[in-house]
Amino acid sequence: MIIEGKNSVLEAVKNGLTINKMMVQNNLTDNISNEIIKLCKVKGIRIDFVSKEVLDKKTTNRHQGFICEVTDFKYCEVEDILNFASSKNEDAFILILDGIEDPHNFGALIRTAECAGVHGIIIPEHRATPVNDTVVKTSAGATSNMLIARVNNINNIIDILKKENVWIYCLEVGGEEITKTNLTGNIAIVVGSEGNGVSRLTKEKCDGIISIKLKGKINSLNASVAGAVAMYEVVRQRG
Amino acid sequence: MIIEGKNSVLEAVKNGLTINKMMVQNNLTDNISNEIIKLCKVKGIRIDFVSKEVLDKKTTNRHQGFICEVTDFKYCEVEDILNFASSKNEDAFILILDGIEDPHNFGALIRTAECAGVHGIIIPEHRATPVNDTVVKTSAGATSNMLIARVNNINNIIDILKKENVWIYCLEVGGEEITKTNLTGNIAIVVGSEGNGVSRLTKEKCDGIISIKLKGKINSLNASVAGAVAMYEVVRQRG
Repeated sequence: MIIEGKNSVLEAVKNGLTINKMMVQNNLTDNISNEIIKLCKVKGIRIDFVSKEVLDKKTTNRHQGFICEVTDFKYCEVEDILNFASSKNEDAFILILDGIEDPHNFGALIRTAECAGVHGIIIPEHRATPVNDTVVKTSAGATSNMLIARVNNINNIIDILKKENVWIYCLEVGGEEITKTNLTGNIAIVVGSEGNGVSRLTKEKCDGIISIKLKGKINSLNASVAGAVAMYEVVRQRG
Repeated sequence: MIIEGKNSVLEAVKNGLTINKMMVQNNLTDNISNEIIKLCKVKGIRIDFVSKEVLDKKTTNRHQGFICEVTDFKYCEVEDILNFASSKNEDAFILILDGIEDPHNFGALIRTAECAGVHGIIIPEHRATPVNDTVVKTSAGATSNMLIARVNNINNIIDILKKENVWIYCLEVGGEEITKTNLTGNIAIVVGSEGNGVSRLTKEKCDGIISIKLKGKINSLNASVAGAVAMYEVVRQRG
């Protein structure tokens, strides 16, 4: 959904709508403009400052220097995911997606996660596709039944999860084979981006690297397939 | 690739190119036309008889009443797949796709199959996507390393495989859980189409129905994901 105009954009930011893109005209100095910009900084919303001409091309309505794109999807907090697992008396089973950019892959992962009994998914705010129309469609509606937290910094969240006794496994090549790793207990599996895998810093923070056996000449599985195979190995081990 | 004109189409059929679509003008009675039509019948190539106007709309070249669409991909025989498994001293591991229509799903399944050490894939000639450009691209090149047989009748092939001591498992809901089924030995897994699953007759011919545990509210996995989870359960059991 596109929101335009100072007051509408201010409301969107104040009400905590999930903002995917915020475009603001350069050099605005009035009170409301300053308030919106300040609030965006506080909430960690990245602003693209552009010329009036760029905004004019985006819309035929009066934008007053502000256009933002919001999603209707209600993200949760990481805490909500942990609480949900506790409420079911189950060991936490979390999926962390470190930069999935293809909405089809993201949707497919949400669908599989829902089927595999994952309690929640954590995605980063930047360099990753948010929950958009394509994601909802590809997920076969699973977005309605899945807790998804969108966080500023995956690495900080990993630290928090570790304090909550969640073991973090990075799904990458070169690690211990998944079927030989104990995946019971509270765990989170980190799946990397399609092009670059799990980022170096995140990988270093993980408790272990787990891998899927590759028997052919192709050296990697598709991200959504790799995630699915790993999730169902967890299901198998938990019985 | 599109081939037009009597002699070119005759060559294509004679040389055993894989013909995805054969369009022939109604009421042709000359010798070459009769030869092509007869040869198509012998080889089981389905002909769409259409009016001259329909063909004229398809091309600006001289079609002489014949237009066909061929793929460059070289399909193999089912025997080649069994021989390949034998040559590696491995129990046969075959994937039968009963009508996958989405080329992205087909490509994804080929990629995963290659990674999981599947010896070959069997697809039907009709009501299923052939190996086309999208499939090749989505497979990440795995089509070059995978034996794929395109057969007239999946059910007849299942009979042949059974005589070769291959156990046929149908991947569907309502069967025995895959992790509790013995999937070692010579096996073929049948994955159904996106919309309709495995067809009734084919299902009845299978030695067993295997299922993936679904723990959420969504009642099915994507076909390429379900296939991947099943293939990797085979990999796990074979060690």
